[in-house]
Amino acid sequence: MATPTATRTTSATPTSFGPAVALSCRECGERTELGPKYACESCFGPLEVAYDFGTVTREQIEAGPHNIWRYAPLLPVSADVASRPSLNPGFTKLVRAENLGRELGVRNLHVKDDSGNPTHSFKDRVVAIAVEAARTFGFTTLSCSSTGNLAGAVGAAAARVGLRSCVFIPADLEAGKVVTAAVYGGELVAIEGTYDEVNRFCSELIGDPAGENWGFVNVNLRPYYGEGSKTLAYEIAEQLGWKLPEQIVVPIASGSQLTKIDKGFRELIALGLVEDAPYRIFGAQATGCSPVAAAWKAGHDVIRPVRPDTIAKSLAIGNPADGPYVLDVCKRTGGAVEDVNDVEVVEAMKLLARTEGIFGETAGGVTVGCLRKLLESGALDPDAETVVLNTGDGLKTLDAVTPTTGPTATIRPTLDSFRKAGLA
Amino acid sequence: MATPTATRTTSATPTSFGPAVALSCRECGERTELGPKYACESCFGPLEVAYDFGTVTREQIEAGPHNIWRYAPLLPVSADVASRPSLNPGFTKLVRAENLGRELGVRNLHVKDDSGNPTHSFKDRVVAIAVEAARTFGFTTLSCSSTGNLAGAVGAAAARVGLRSCVFIPADLEAGKVVTAAVYGGELVAIEGTYDEVNRFCSELIGDPAGENWGFVNVNLRPYYGEGSKTLAYEIAEQLGWKLPEQIVVPIASGSQLTKIDKGFRELIALGLVEDAPYRIFGAQATGCSPVAAAWKAGHDVIRPVRPDTIAKSLAIGNPADGPYVLDVCKRTGGAVEDVNDVEVVEAMKLLARTEGIFGETAGGVTVGCLRKLLESGALDPDAETVVLNTGDGLKTLDAVTPTTGPTATIRPTLDSFRKAGLA
Repeated sequence: MATPTATRTTSATPTSFGPAVALSCRECGERTELGPKYACESCFGPLEVAYDFGTVTREQIEAGPHNIWRYAPLLPVSADVASRPSLNPGFTKLVRAENLGRELGVRNLHVKDDSGNPTHSFKDRVVAIAVEAARTFGFTTLSCSSTGNLAGAVGAAAARVGLRSCVFIPADLEAGKVVTAAVYGGELVAIEGTYDEVNRFCSELIGDPAGENWGFVNVNLRPYYGEGSKTLAYEIAEQLGWKLPEQIVVPIASGSQLTKIDKGFRELIALGLVEDAPYRIFGAQATGCSPVAAAWKAGHDVIRPVRPDTIAKSLAIGNPADGPYVLDVCKRTGGAVEDVNDVEVVEAMKLLARTEGIFGETAGGVTVGCLRKLLESGALDPDAETVVLNTGDGLKTLDAVTPTTGPTATIRPTLDSFRKAGLA
Repeated sequence: MATPTATRTTSATPTSFGPAVALSCRECGERTELGPKYACESCFGPLEVAYDFGTVTREQIEAGPHNIWRYAPLLPVSADVASRPSLNPGFTKLVRAENLGRELGVRNLHVKDDSGNPTHSFKDRVVAIAVEAARTFGFTTLSCSSTGNLAGAVGAAAARVGLRSCVFIPADLEAGKVVTAAVYGGELVAIEGTYDEVNRFCSELIGDPAGENWGFVNVNLRPYYGEGSKTLAYEIAEQLGWKLPEQIVVPIASGSQLTKIDKGFRELIALGLVEDAPYRIFGAQATGCSPVAAAWKAGHDVIRPVRPDTIAKSLAIGNPADGPYVLDVCKRTGGAVEDVNDVEVVEAMKLLARTEGIFGETAGGVTVGCLRKLLESGALDPDAETVVLNTGDGLKTLDAVTPTTGPTATIRPTLDSFRKAGLA
């Protein structure tokens, strides 16, 4: 364990949050002190972390560890963060996808494969930052509501760092998902009610004395948590040789990840770490939960909530908090928002596996499917350097491909049977 | 794709295999040319790769990529291997396991976590080397028989490199395992018979003209394939700061991995890359398939085959080919072979998850369980630097923990119900 130096404290001093200096409202711009807050006191807009970076160099970053902490100078964490226990997520592979590019007719394609994270989804990135904030605020319990990737990421991270965890799930969750949430040994509370009721209960708990010292990673720690997604932008740029991709396809759940990737790219430009070149950000949704794509296509500024009905459960947020900001980013950068139906999601999952040996989650099927659709419609330039995100692991969403994935032949254990099947 | 230079050919010249110069028999020592062979023509002993390394430096290795190809100068692959498409496995995390060490009373403990590989098991390492050999020999189909991790590793690797793959499985395999074998889009042939019959059929196919140009990764490519396990030894030593661990606990299936880790350590010493310090290697088996542990405990030199009956299916080889060599290594290094029953396997899986946030496969439960048992018996020194291997991913063996892993509480969505459950 790291011993804090004499000039460091465990309270929420600016030092504990590294270059972060305040929380600022994304709506009215009002600033407030760094703290476990997520809504602006003036206008109730969402708060995000504001920084005073000073000088950050490529050499400084390249000398860091092979995980997200190499970007500590760009995150709301203290400079010695890498010396403390952590799952150390990040620096996942950026795969040069020649086979997939050939099939889709795109010249220079990369897959950023976040299934390589410790619990096999990008959630390890955001939770790692939330854990640092929880430690700094002195929270003793790390919590969330989740039906999937987030539960495992919180349980595993809390186990490693020695925090108590308490994850809330609907009581009727499938056995497999219960296991991946429970196996890390924290509290796992099944709530007799719908997922909406679970969330309502969590909001109540945060406002109650019983929830004191509880850090809900995506509620009262949300401004810090969200910053974890910036590391995807940093890694992609560094892995491309310190330049921004010309085009990137990002999944949309709450929309936070897409807006933070944009934030990360803009920071790299502002700091002179990459050339100020144009980039286009494309959002990807499953048609069964596509409120942002629907708004984009209709030319609306507001998002009309939907009731999700898709196999891409990790993206199934019917009322995405950052939806309007996603529309802004895609408009400003010259991107678009697209959606694909569940059949296309499964086809794209299998296409990615068949061409690159990457078995991604349904969310990866959504991005690859939208990549294909955007190329077909001409929205994406096939000659521009393009990155597509796979944010999770196919092992967690086996059900999606099971009905259409099986043996190509069944034979008896003889050479004769083998030859008759035409396999030689 | 890399363009071969004018001095390289695709035939099996010594250049194509880098520092490898021959195959040598582990029994009689007779040497033969590098080729798709696995048994000595004189005595039928197993063949392994022999090298002429020349000089290899730490700096040379450290300048390489963050995957197994940084060790190309120590492997039977050409020097430009990293420029060709590959899943690029390896350089997985060596986790400083302070929490687990505290619970078990061992001072300086690390977990080498190979669930971080592309298809989430150590098999990606061995398959990657087999793929290089298959390319060099001009094989057009990559093949194996498997009921688990190997199927996915072969399917994924073949997809990435553009080789045809054909994986053989018993027709009654569980649906989940069929999916992870089939999703990469190669041929998946279900054989109406037992796993033994599948293997017998594969042996027939290798000897038949129909199997010409087929590379069975763990049969006619086995000498190359096996060398992939050496990378575990190299990585552990490098990640410890270029020194060998004093003790290491390794799972035993065929026994190959354990003997190759020993080979890797000896090579590092011989090349002067680490200090020549003693190390002790301990083997770990599940009691339901523990022929090597049984021989060790009885003081026998020969292994009596068993019929496997354990949840640790990835280790369930009843007649381990390298069993006698494992006994030799453990005896020579001052180690031992231990086994744990299925209840202990599950407890150890949950212990590893609860303390370090690592959800390992049943095989990881076997090594952690044996680590505990070896500490309790005094066979392992609690003050010596110790590494324990987790070679696979808990997501692939959910069934093992499902019966004993669930919510810690079930409540109604009210603060009152929450308080009554004692969760505040």
